Amino acid sequence: MEHTVSFQIAETGKSATAKVPTGSLLVEALHEAGVEIGQPCGGQGRCGRCIVQVTEGNIRRRSALRLSVEDIADGYALACQSVIEGDLLVFVPPQEKIARRMTSDRVATEVKVPENYDFRWSQRIRRVNLSLNPPNMDDQTDDLARLQTALRTQANIGQTDCSLALLRRIGVILREAEWQVTAILDMASGDSDAPARLIDLRPGPTDEDTPLWAAAIDIGTTTVTFWLVDLVTGQVKMQIAEYNSQIARGEDVVSRIVYASKEGGGEEMQSRVVDTINSLAETACKRLKISAPEVIKAALVGNSTMIHLLLGVPAASIRLSPFITAVNHPPLITAREIGLRINPEATVDCLPGVASYVGADITAGVLSSGVDLSDNITLFLDVGTNGEMVLGNRDWLVTCACSAGPAFEGAGVVDGMRAMEGAIEEVWINGETFEPSYRVIGGGKPRGICGSGLISLLAEAFLTGVLDKAGNVNTSLKTRRVRESEHGGEYVVAWGAETEDGDDIVISRVDVDNLLRAKAAIYAGYTVLADQVGVSLADVHKMLIGGSFGKYINVEKAVQIGLLPDMPWERFEFLGNTAVRGAYYALLDWQARDRVAEIARRMTYIELSADNTFYDAFMSAMFLPHTDMSKFPTVEAALRKT
Amino acid sequence: MEHTVSFQIAETGKSATAKVPTGSLLVEALHEAGVEIGQPCGGQGRCGRCIVQVTEGNIRRRSALRLSVEDIADGYALACQSVIEGDLLVFVPPQEKIARRMTSDRVATEVKVPENYDFRWSQRIRRVNLSLNPPNMDDQTDDLARLQTALRTQANIGQTDCSLALLRRIGVILREAEWQVTAILDMASGDSDAPARLIDLRPGPTDEDTPLWAAAIDIGTTTVTFWLVDLVTGQVKMQIAEYNSQIARGEDVVSRIVYASKEGGGEEMQSRVVDTINSLAETACKRLKISAPEVIKAALVGNSTMIHLLLGVPAASIRLSPFITAVNHPPLITAREIGLRINPEATVDCLPGVASYVGADITAGVLSSGVDLSDNITLFLDVGTNGEMVLGNRDWLVTCACSAGPAFEGAGVVDGMRAMEGAIEEVWINGETFEPSYRVIGGGKPRGICGSGLISLLAEAFLTGVLDKAGNVNTSLKTRRVRESEHGGEYVVAWGAETEDGDDIVISRVDVDNLLRAKAAIYAGYTVLADQVGVSLADVHKMLIGGSFGKYINVEKAVQIGLLPDMPWERFEFLGNTAVRGAYYALLDWQARDRVAEIARRMTYIELSADNTFYDAFMSAMFLPHTDMSKFPTVEAALRKT
Repeated sequence: MEHTVSFQIAETGKSATAKVPTGSLLVEALHEAGVEIGQPCGGQGRCGRCIVQVTEGNIRRRSALRLSVEDIADGYALACQSVIEGDLLVFVPPQEKIARRMTSDRVATEVKVPENYDFRWSQRIRRVNLSLNPPNMDDQTDDLARLQTALRTQANIGQTDCSLALLRRIGVILREAEWQVTAILDMASGDSDAPARLIDLRPGPTDEDTPLWAAAIDIGTTTVTFWLVDLVTGQVKMQIAEYNSQIARGEDVVSRIVYASKEGGGEEMQSRVVDTINSLAETACKRLKISAPEVIKAALVGNSTMIHLLLGVPAASIRLSPFITAVNHPPLITAREIGLRINPEATVDCLPGVASYVGADITAGVLSSGVDLSDNITLFLDVGTNGEMVLGNRDWLVTCACSAGPAFEGAGVVDGMRAMEGAIEEVWINGETFEPSYRVIGGGKPRGICGSGLISLLAEAFLTGVLDKAGNVNTSLKTRRVRESEHGGEYVVAWGAETEDGDDIVISRVDVDNLLRAKAAIYAGYTVLADQVGVSLADVHKMLIGGSFGKYINVEKAVQIGLLPDMPWERFEFLGNTAVRGAYYALLDWQARDRVAEIARRMTYIELSADNTFYDAFMSAMFLPHTDMSKFPTVEAALRKT
Repeated sequence: MEHTVSFQIAETGKSATAKVPTGSLLVEALHEAGVEIGQPCGGQGRCGRCIVQVTEGNIRRRSALRLSVEDIADGYALACQSVIEGDLLVFVPPQEKIARRMTSDRVATEVKVPENYDFRWSQRIRRVNLSLNPPNMDDQTDDLARLQTALRTQANIGQTDCSLALLRRIGVILREAEWQVTAILDMASGDSDAPARLIDLRPGPTDEDTPLWAAAIDIGTTTVTFWLVDLVTGQVKMQIAEYNSQIARGEDVVSRIVYASKEGGGEEMQSRVVDTINSLAETACKRLKISAPEVIKAALVGNSTMIHLLLGVPAASIRLSPFITAVNHPPLITAREIGLRINPEATVDCLPGVASYVGADITAGVLSSGVDLSDNITLFLDVGTNGEMVLGNRDWLVTCACSAGPAFEGAGVVDGMRAMEGAIEEVWINGETFEPSYRVIGGGKPRGICGSGLISLLAEAFLTGVLDKAGNVNTSLKTRRVRESEHGGEYVVAWGAETEDGDDIVISRVDVDNLLRAKAAIYAGYTVLADQVGVSLADVHKMLIGGSFGKYINVEKAVQIGLLPDMPWERFEFLGNTAVRGAYYALLDWQARDRVAEIARRMTYIELSADNTFYDAFMSAMFLPHTDMSKFPTVEAALRKT
């Protein structure tokens, strides 16, 4: 009897299927489906490198070596030890993650610490050395009041709140430390009347240069980024990132919300993202040789869905018209409340967002890019799994979200993939022979095409006439590279002989259509925002691009396909992860923290699905580069040249 | 083979021992030890009335009918179904508790609601009906902000905090209720700038006469008292009480602290007292046909040890010189934090105490008795398991605690017992024949002597010369009632033929000594307090006596033994449980709540063990009624008459 095994491959973002007889091993099905998986031990179930997750259907296990009870309950299995007895759906985790637990990490060097930075005043954490008078028969003040008095008289901190959990510990700490302690407090509010909150009490005095650790965290739909920051110097001492383990339950926010709305789904999503953060925190702390409770604050950003799922707040209303969040300004909580394994008393500050599809990642991006302080009109664009943008200056800010979808991350494009080893990242097409040349990340054989490659491919194909203005493949060209297929006309970028898996890498009419939708949604976003405030895109003084998306794309080509507006190149600036940088600023400086709340309040959110002009603008932009060529004079000029 | 089975009998406060052969039933050992236990079903394991708790050693169970898994884990067993296979320590719970789950309970009628009471203004809970505008594409305000706006515009509540747990629920509640809701908030502080805290959100509007439930709770070392209060009318709708289940781990605060300081002991003590409160809350709610989450606030009082154990805060330093509490003003917490099964968001307000041995039960007692408002000097005495007192008026307050011990609750006296059925509560002795007559609670055969009986016995014995001034039994009297014993001279109050268990009920020299110590400690307390402020006991305008102790004692006899000072009887007032009444006032009225904090601040605590004058005063009071007879003119007069 034959069974169908479907694989979801995290590394490439692709799916694959195999049909295998009963009794086959999962590793055989992987091979059949053309999915590479490491087997250093030769398939003997020893190395644990072929771990996959069976999300539907059952397997028979020959061995469960290297798997915990929790792993088994979650469906994790060794592919080389799992016997297939029925149809299966299998998730293949990123191989780098299995091998190194980490997809990317490096010690930060390039984050600039704000000037004139002095941790004692610019941020809300205070660390103070206290010398308490021991109690005696004539001074029977209780431990908490004694501590509060010392804070008042020795550190000028008028009122201090203490959690029950910490209250349970202070008596022992004070006595063991013989009344010489270091107190760590969160001043919580710039308003000096509000009580400070005691976060930690440590025995003995602490030298003022000793690092004081905090975390800036960006929860992306795809990737969670974690910065470990020393609040004394303001330096970022570690930057690491890992896939958001919610990926196993859906690639985009909508599928995450759907999953979270099922029985138990919300709890699972919450613990998945918390697990990812905890894994990052553990790694970062281990490398810096510090203990997790030394991390006494965290500033978090993410899109509104990610923040709802992190907090365990139902996100269902985000997905349904009229698209309402439960909360845009989450209350301050402690790490304990959501199970973050840093100091349990650590303040967890989820920065404020604006709306269902404009979250704290965008307000933090505005903060770190300074759009809200600029005298000139700036357009800020963050393309990740979704596309959000902000237009404005110091006087006004408008924002919208385009359901661009993750096409530029490779989803919805048959040979699309994320920007990693084996991805074609740039393409050139000879205008006479229509033969392409390309560059592959890592230099090996190509496995697919990543976002920058797709942009470059689309631009080249359009300029050389392989694609027409509407995105149709010109199959009448005199080259074997163009041909008809089940997905409409297609263009072969790499022949099977050149590729990793032996299959041709192509772009089809359907792929082009998905890419056009994505870029048209983004371009229509600019148009509607500009129209709303009555300015022209020509008035935009700077265009700032955040997110990892921007890091590798070629501006000229992005303009040629109409993804970016046609403006002088020097106006574009690529900023990388503006979201985590905003969280970092909010951590370091309470005025920045106040500013991000002010940004969230000031931003006028335009719900595009409620806007009649959006549809028209979208349809006009469903062309290469646009129906109205006068908006793209440099592209028009380039076309005339070819 | 023979085994020793030791019983701790909650009902009488006594211990008993039996030696029985292997294979005996526990019920046979109970019988052997002379411990009565109900067996309506005839020992067939059906009725569950013979439940005991095996705290040390193991038994073999024939049947576990009527026991839950938790019961079995806690060592509960049916005495008629338990086979003895080794030495055992067995706790015999109060029989009334088994039979009725409750030792005392009655619907309150006599608690006077403060005049001009209007729940909307005098206390800190607000219940408001809100009609929210549903969101739409033009108004995408998030759920929390929408609710906060409605609170601001419709209820004039400027700022509202919302816990994460409640935030997880508000979206669903708002939508299911179609945006018509009742919000319940705790205004937390009289200061209108501080944010209110959202406690509950319920679908639909609520009629303003609908009860709004809160609990006033007094955690006594022996008994936990629970009042269920309707905050709308201010009425106490239910008063119930139950033994504090910590009793199984020690009768007094010192033995509780010692137990709690052992590994896991603190957690056990915490869960024991919480279980007791939960059992009371469940019973009260069931009788009033309300659900536990309807109870949205609790004000708690208790001595400092009880409050520490409730909060799970280590209490070890309370017991050791210099006798320091971890906290006298506990932070506001929620029911969730300590596992109280009322509304998990309910504010749990532990009222402030003063010192290790002057807790919130005393500050609440001062509040409800009004000592702090009086123009005249008042002496407030609360004798429970310990004895605390306060002397003062509107201008000053001094307080101390006497380690009187629970002698007047029957402990430390061989035939002592608590005031319950079978206790001798009053004694008279014929001055010529020395024959006694007595009154027994419930009218049946006597089982022992309770506090009021002991006071009355001591006074009669002294006035008739059975005891001399120093407490020695005059064994030369011509009566069989006085005799020598292993405990020194003793006086027989009831012959075995008259008693429940067939043994003589006696009072011995050792018993008298323990009672003298207790009363001397209390009297020395008055002396030191009065000396400290330079007033004489004659200046005391009122003597207020709180605690269940005061409810049944005969003032004349208490003066005759020197427990109460010799002053005109009309100056004495017995107030019953002043502690729970203080909690009730604090619940109803935020000015009362502020006042109790003010009382705690104002009270000057005198640590008697640090006071040289205390020992002298104590030694002078170790006589009947006192060495200095001039302090007891009415007793002197009475002696002259006899």
